[in-house]
Amino acid sequence: MTKGRLEAFSDGVIAIIITIMVLEMKVPHGGGLEDLRPLLAVFLSYVLSFLYVGIYWNNHHHMLHAATTVTGAMLWANLHLLFWLSLFPFATGWMGENHFTAVPTALYGVVLLMAAIAYYALQQTIIRAQGHESILKKAVGHDWKGKLSPVLYAAAIPLAFWWQWISLGLYVVGAVLWLIPDRRIENVLSTARHN
Amino acid sequence: MTKGRLEAFSDGVIAIIITIMVLEMKVPHGGGLEDLRPLLAVFLSYVLSFLYVGIYWNNHHHMLHAATTVTGAMLWANLHLLFWLSLFPFATGWMGENHFTAVPTALYGVVLLMAAIAYYALQQTIIRAQGHESILKKAVGHDWKGKLSPVLYAAAIPLAFWWQWISLGLYVVGAVLWLIPDRRIENVLSTARHN
Amino acid sequence: MTKGRLEAFSDGVIAIIITIMVLEMKVPHGGGLEDLRPLLAVFLSYVLSFLYVGIYWNNHHHMLHAATTVTGAMLWANLHLLFWLSLFPFATGWMGENHFTAVPTALYGVVLLMAAIAYYALQQTIIRAQGHESILKKAVGHDWKGKLSPVLYAAAIPLAFWWQWISLGLYVVGAVLWLIPDRRIENVLSTARHN
Amino acid sequence: MTKGRLEAFSDGVIAIIITIMVLEMKVPHGGGLEDLRPLLAVFLSYVLSFLYVGIYWNNHHHMLHAATTVTGAMLWANLHLLFWLSLFPFATGWMGENHFTAVPTALYGVVLLMAAIAYYALQQTIIRAQGHESILKKAVGHDWKGKLSPVLYAAAIPLAFWWQWISLGLYVVGAVLWLIPDRRIENVLSTARHN
Repeated sequence: MTKGRLEAFSDGVIAIIITIMVLEMKVPHGGGLEDLRPLLAVFLSYVLSFLYVGIYWNNHHHMLHAATTVTGAMLWANLHLLFWLSLFPFATGWMGENHFTAVPTALYGVVLLMAAIAYYALQQTIIRAQGHESILKKAVGHDWKGKLSPVLYAAAIPLAFWWQWISLGLYVVGAVLWLIPDRRIENVLSTARHN
Repeated sequence: MTKGRLEAFSDGVIAIIITIMVLEMKVPHGGGLEDLRPLLAVFLSYVLSFLYVGIYWNNHHHMLHAATTVTGAMLWANLHLLFWLSLFPFATGWMGENHFTAVPTALYGVVLLMAAIAYYALQQTIIRAQGHESILKKAVGHDWKGKLSPVLYAAAIPLAFWWQWISLGLYVVGAVLWLIPDRRIENVLSTARHN
Repeated sequence: MTKGRLEAFSDGVIAIIITIMVLEMKVPHGGGLEDLRPLLAVFLSYVLSFLYVGIYWNNHHHMLHAATTVTGAMLWANLHLLFWLSLFPFATGWMGENHFTAVPTALYGVVLLMAAIAYYALQQTIIRAQGHESILKKAVGHDWKGKLSPVLYAAAIPLAFWWQWISLGLYVVGAVLWLIPDRRIENVLSTARHN
Repeated sequence: MTKGRLEAFSDGVIAIIITIMVLEMKVPHGGGLEDLRPLLAVFLSYVLSFLYVGIYWNNHHHMLHAATTVTGAMLWANLHLLFWLSLFPFATGWMGENHFTAVPTALYGVVLLMAAIAYYALQQTIIRAQGHESILKKAVGHDWKGKLSPVLYAAAIPLAFWWQWISLGLYVVGAVLWLIPDRRIENVLSTARHN
């Protein structure tokens, strides 16, 4: 199993997910500015999800970059991650169309949480497959981002039933956390290259 | 004809199939938990089909890995397989929306059966193209999985008209069969490399 | 401009076209066999278009295989072909939904004709870019298929207003023509390799 | 981060955008020529957007061709461009369905303007990452096209509220500007290769 085809397939699925999300923003029949207003919530949900899928693509890329072997377990852990990412268009559309009411906002958090868990599981599967000297293991280090973000999403899910704006705030914080450049993997890789 | 472009095209089509299936899970207008309940059947159908398409992608990858030449017959046998896979979103959506009633459950089995036959035909086409010393032929061996699964689907189709839950059970068994790791091709490839 | 990225982009577009065509086959609400009957025409249109897009992918692949340089003119001639191919889902869905009535059957022929012309134009652009010793030029030879098929489609368009079944027959003949293996390009390439 | 995967992901997203735009041209229920007439505006919008997305793909390809390093900032500048391109199907569908009335025509200009700005920002990010001797910087030169086109779109947005046909004319001019072959990057690259 070559890494190239695993990357290409994942890229394909992620590219499709990030693009078909926009189809949930249905073209309104009227042609006035007021016809766009009900779409504002869908648009904002789309922006948030676009960021998240972009972050996943970016991180997925770095993670696989640090992998040397591809095993059957990695293939399925990868498909598991893609499964939860594939639910982003549904969760995004539902949250947007209902203008951030409780249940859809909570469900969005469930999808974020499951994707974060699936990502963590894939990371562990790769580290196990690469052995003790795994570059990825060194690169990830204490992985406080990978541990903090599922906690944020898990907290946001019940909160959505009382204060959904706090849940949304936590989702935004979760995205910003990852947007701040993280040079761990790049650093360890370049150190490894020097030695 | 290079193998790379055949793989890339198949990956593209399979990535799109696995992703657009989720579009059959239409975003409900209401924002309550009770609005999700009618979608449960569609969601479960989606999970099953995601597994099947994932299995096909995985096996397709291994199969082509063991191929050395690409012939015109292989191209068309491959498109034939992609054709049946492309009907998964329709069959999945119809079965889910009708909550596993008889005819849609039977049609799902027809699509599974035709995809299994198309996969088998592609495998034979590749083996024939590679000649007597085909690595794939050795790897496949008695191919009890490839022979058992179409029998399961063929049995499930008429059964759907009396006990559709047994048909669904057979579809799940068919997926689980393939999920159990199968190291045949990997083994033969690594043996071939050692000699 | 590398040939690889031109191929990858074309493959991506063609893979999406061939797959989203199936979305025109809308999942019916009822769950009986009689609910499938109105879809038969859409299904048959889908099969025909799947064949045609498959043929285009196959031929496109061979054509680019014989190309050595990539020019700006080739890029635009290629996008022009992709444009007409992108209208297949619309033309297929319209013809199928109207059960092969006159105007949609004629429009399907218009799209086939324009795609054939765009393919021919791309072929000429590549030959011109490769110079007099073009492998593609030798491979294409008299190109009776490339010349006959637009004639078939051009004849089928007006015929659709009187006998649309003859038009449909001509579309099927056009597809079968190309399905018959054509080893011209492969032959010339292997001869070139031997010298 | 390898350039190959950045190109492949961008190609995937652009290929999907250019193809799903056609889904906004809904198959009409009736089968007569008069059923196509209301689609004419959608079709013309589709042609314009197809041209624009094709131009972006083409230019994006050339721009990355001249890049040697890939940085985190480039990844996000690239995703930013893809975000605005992903709004083309929505803006195209809305403008077409409303037959080029004021607000949708202005919104189309907003999306064009934002995409042009995002493209410019990506270009600057790449030049900064490549250092003073950047091939791209030399190739781009005074970049009058890159500077003129956002001015055209910015002028077209308010004009749409009085004379939307002038706005549309400016959008067409903007596309034609880029369609005229531009050999800057190719020239500088071939000069660089000769030295």
